[in-house]
Amino acid sequence: MANTTRFEAKEGLDPRQVAVILQAVEAGDTAELTRLLEPMHAADVADLLEQISAEERRQLLAMWSGEIDGDILSEISDAIREEVIEALPPGVVAEAMRELDTDDVVDILEDLEEPAQEAILSTLDSADRLAVEQALAYPEYSAGRLMQREVVTAPEHWTVGEMIDHLRAAEWLPDQFYHVILVDPRMRPVSYVTLGRLLSSRRDVALKAIVEESFRTITATDPEADVAYLFNQYHLISCAVVDEHGRLVGVITIDDAMNVLDEEHQEDMLRLAGVDDESSVLDTAAETARRRLPWLMVNLVTASLSAVVISRFEATIEAIVVLAALMPIVASTGGIAGTQSLAVAVRALATRDLTASNARRVVWRELGAGLLNGLGLALVLGLAGTLLFGDWRLGVVLSSAMMVNQVVAALGGVLVPLSLNRMGLDPALASGTFVTTLTDVMGFFAFLGLATLVLL
Amino acid sequence: MANTTRFEAKEGLDPRQVAVILQAVEAGDTAELTRLLEPMHAADVADLLEQISAEERRQLLAMWSGEIDGDILSEISDAIREEVIEALPPGVVAEAMRELDTDDVVDILEDLEEPAQEAILSTLDSADRLAVEQALAYPEYSAGRLMQREVVTAPEHWTVGEMIDHLRAAEWLPDQFYHVILVDPRMRPVSYVTLGRLLSSRRDVALKAIVEESFRTITATDPEADVAYLFNQYHLISCAVVDEHGRLVGVITIDDAMNVLDEEHQEDMLRLAGVDDESSVLDTAAETARRRLPWLMVNLVTASLSAVVISRFEATIEAIVVLAALMPIVASTGGIAGTQSLAVAVRALATRDLTASNARRVVWRELGAGLLNGLGLALVLGLAGTLLFGDWRLGVVLSSAMMVNQVVAALGGVLVPLSLNRMGLDPALASGTFVTTLTDVMGFFAFLGLATLVLL
Repeated sequence: MANTTRFEAKEGLDPRQVAVILQAVEAGDTAELTRLLEPMHAADVADLLEQISAEERRQLLAMWSGEIDGDILSEISDAIREEVIEALPPGVVAEAMRELDTDDVVDILEDLEEPAQEAILSTLDSADRLAVEQALAYPEYSAGRLMQREVVTAPEHWTVGEMIDHLRAAEWLPDQFYHVILVDPRMRPVSYVTLGRLLSSRRDVALKAIVEESFRTITATDPEADVAYLFNQYHLISCAVVDEHGRLVGVITIDDAMNVLDEEHQEDMLRLAGVDDESSVLDTAAETARRRLPWLMVNLVTASLSAVVISRFEATIEAIVVLAALMPIVASTGGIAGTQSLAVAVRALATRDLTASNARRVVWRELGAGLLNGLGLALVLGLAGTLLFGDWRLGVVLSSAMMVNQVVAALGGVLVPLSLNRMGLDPALASGTFVTTLTDVMGFFAFLGLATLVLL
Repeated sequence: MANTTRFEAKEGLDPRQVAVILQAVEAGDTAELTRLLEPMHAADVADLLEQISAEERRQLLAMWSGEIDGDILSEISDAIREEVIEALPPGVVAEAMRELDTDDVVDILEDLEEPAQEAILSTLDSADRLAVEQALAYPEYSAGRLMQREVVTAPEHWTVGEMIDHLRAAEWLPDQFYHVILVDPRMRPVSYVTLGRLLSSRRDVALKAIVEESFRTITATDPEADVAYLFNQYHLISCAVVDEHGRLVGVITIDDAMNVLDEEHQEDMLRLAGVDDESSVLDTAAETARRRLPWLMVNLVTASLSAVVISRFEATIEAIVVLAALMPIVASTGGIAGTQSLAVAVRALATRDLTASNARRVVWRELGAGLLNGLGLALVLGLAGTLLFGDWRLGVVLSSAMMVNQVVAALGGVLVPLSLNRMGLDPALASGTFVTTLTDVMGFFAFLGLATLVLL
């Protein structure tokens, strides 16, 4: 096969690789397609399906549907998963689901519509179906939805030797396990032992003697954001999940926690920008428009506030029309300052670096920073205004308005997310619109108001 | 001790807990302080030090300096680490460093100034010092800086029994290890075995027979962003690091990769907002101001472009002064649309969902979304303008300008980061300033230009 192209799978999907695969699809060459796809990692096949057009995807799935397995379905983006599942024969989907651990099946099912969910549930055998339904009974975005139910446990009093014999005799073990969880007779987890310690200890050592300090539990109904925080804060690899009576019901591993952390970041970034947090470049134009229109409409209303403020100063603008050209400078620089302060505050709230313990101090610091930068910008703008227009009074108006708006921006950027957070809302949600409205209105008001006082 | 307060360490630091600790500091009660701090996780002690004032920190460290260990120094934010290290007696710092794995020592040292680095290096014993200096010789933000050099390996031909005997006999094993890496006689890693498989297999099974498909290597000079991508894409728990000859030099574990992923997100979010990517709520007011001033100054210049555009239409504004009040509506709604499109594109570039394979299709979709939302907003604004001002021609001007600017915003939001990315620059860097300048200038130009044509 010296004349055909081979790709290193090391660094994700290569655009040239995509082009070669699409050639095979277009030529209807199933053998070549299989040869190209077969060695690829499920995550890369999923990326491929995401990055080609809907029509190409349809063709590829028609040629290769039998090979789509559970891992691929599990890797594929929510944005196109339903479409892919619908394109597959029911037998292929059923077989794919049977290969997966419960947490992965739950992850796939929870984003599907009711009929598609039912169709898949009905193909599972009764034990798996029960496990999946139990997981789906936990609230959305809870630890219970994230956990796998397959857990390796041991009675507290066992020795290393007993444990190893037990593991060797086990017919089946989870794909991902890093700890053996010690439980009391009522199935309440009390500690855990890493596999590394287990392997390096003598057979007669008691498990109790080699437990880890890092052991923690989380309740199945706790929000998944707490799971991500716990793993990140305490460098956990796995965490036992308990029910309201403290009994072990499952375990969450770090790959799931990393996934949640990634999604939380996506949410923060997109919400801050005023977009639906499930927005994706895979959305169609109509979906994209729909996910953005709500905040655009809100902004249309808030922007009208600026218009109302400006219209109160029409007489001033009529007298000195150059003010109309200058007023966006103050408003726009305020908008940037507000966005800066906001991004730092939202990030700090997400990482819990900004708390009730230091909120007051952080607000004072923002005030200081706003004053300092306000002073710097006011000097430059005031000087430029004075020199360009030969009127020092215009310079004074520009620099004073800039000063005021920079302080408002710095304070608004931290106070808006802090207030949303205190109200139990997501500090990233809509903060951007609030803060830029604030800096726009304040920028126009301060500039035109001062101009009316000083210049008329 | 029924009358004193105890806190559950489960969910991070509690503001009430901080208040109680500060009381002990103020009272100079070292015994109480120790009682409160001693059971706390190093990550929570670090958070405590971050959230109190500089003065309180100085007092607390003076009372409790002997107990600050390597884990605490390793958890503490870069923003105050240097300050904390300087406040500690050199002996305490040296002792703290000796407890840590090389990757953690490197992580601490790389952010310190040269003299502080030297002071700490000189306290390490020669083997550790050599290891740390070798790691520091790798480029900043490379895999080599992240890896730990402590690795558990086995010759390819070993059996499970030989491996377990070897581990039991080992005097020392790394804190974090999840795989045994199989190496060839030249120390080139060829595969790995999970500890779970090792524990559950019979002693006579060959290691070769139970290796994992997920095995991958990364080169020590590769950027750490690639490390984060690899772990996230392929759900790795650990990854072997090789030198340019393919020889094993270390291993990176998922906790480090998770950390990098977190930092990458922070960078994207802060850069997009035009703030230095190391900004933190722990910065002083002067540091905060300094990290934000550069983009504010840039914005002062770009905002002047809008002023120049508007000033070309002074005659129009003089004739119809209400235009001055209405023009920010078109500009500001364009700014929001540009920010929305930008956030989605920057995120997709970071997760490698937006690539050369689908860039063209994504740009077309943005155009479609811009047209759809432009149409919707144009209808509302046009109608409102017509009704409020009793002039349908003003409605036409408002809606046409809105339409144009929405399309420019949607396209700018995706084309600016794509272009930066193609130039090898960070797509998040300064995109925000570019895009809002574009939508401001275009918004004012389209609105005032059309008004001049239609209304005068």
